[in-house]
Amino acid sequence: MDPYMQAAIAEARQGLAEGGIPIGSVLVHHGTIIGKGYNRRVQLGSPILHGEMDALENAGRLPASVYRESILYTTLSPCPMCSGAILLYGIPEVVIGENRTFTGEEDLLRSRGVTVTVLQERECIEMMSRFIAERPALWNEDIGTEEDKR
Amino acid sequence: MDPYMQAAIAEARQGLAEGGIPIGSVLVHHGTIIGKGYNRRVQLGSPILHGEMDALENAGRLPASVYRESILYTTLSPCPMCSGAILLYGIPEVVIGENRTFTGEEDLLRSRGVTVTVLQERECIEMMSRFIAERPALWNEDIGTEEDKR
Repeated sequence: MDPYMQAAIAEARQGLAEGGIPIGSVLVHHGTIIGKGYNRRVQLGSPILHGEMDALENAGRLPASVYRESILYTTLSPCPMCSGAILLYGIPEVVIGENRTFTGEEDLLRSRGVTVTVLQERECIEMMSRFIAERPALWNEDIGTEEDKR
Repeated sequence: MDPYMQAAIAEARQGLAEGGIPIGSVLVHHGTIIGKGYNRRVQLGSPILHGEMDALENAGRLPASVYRESILYTTLSPCPMCSGAILLYGIPEVVIGENRTFTGEEDLLRSRGVTVTVLQERECIEMMSRFIAERPALWNEDIGTEEDKR
């Protein structure tokens, strides 16, 4: 498997081990991981620290030129917030573990010129499928929906 | 002036007083401010805590039903990341202090059914105009652009 996706999955598994939502992400610049993170809704009570956001936060303040030569890896298709962050910083490429359990703003990203690749990794699909089945209310909270609308 | 916009401006001024980027925001639910915040790039070294994101973070974890009956006030037109957060949580209305110094994803928000109102408050325009003139590199970093492309 792609080693960067493996690193993103390791982040997701860390979040799961902490009782959190298993979505992980790494930001890669010229082949080097410069930020990594995972969803912290449960751990920090945060509605904004999705995996991708946490990776960007942990990468710290960067000049635009670095983002523009970086690739964001995420275990799950990015939601509108995370997709917006990708657009804000002009990150040109996103590699997604899977979009079977949730499909985010891939079309919007592509329409703005972002290269989007979906790997459909079985490990990502299984991890999210299990989590959603076990914790539907928490998952719905994370994507801003009501459980009774599923 | 609208009291909620006044509250968002007070947040922006707090950020400015701390040496930060003067953009503030409040989240209002049924007439009550349930979250407020301001850009923390400088103060916390954060690339994700724009004013709107900080207000959402400070509001904490909320059910979808609360976001869907809330209004987000922000002193400046929301960037792609903050607009994405608005879409993620289904916040139906955004009131913007001004969009003269920076125009964010207002069209995207409207295309997804969000009510967007721009007040063009002179106080917001003056505060941002002065800041951008004085700290162009910092401002460009915050919106993911290169100074030489201004």
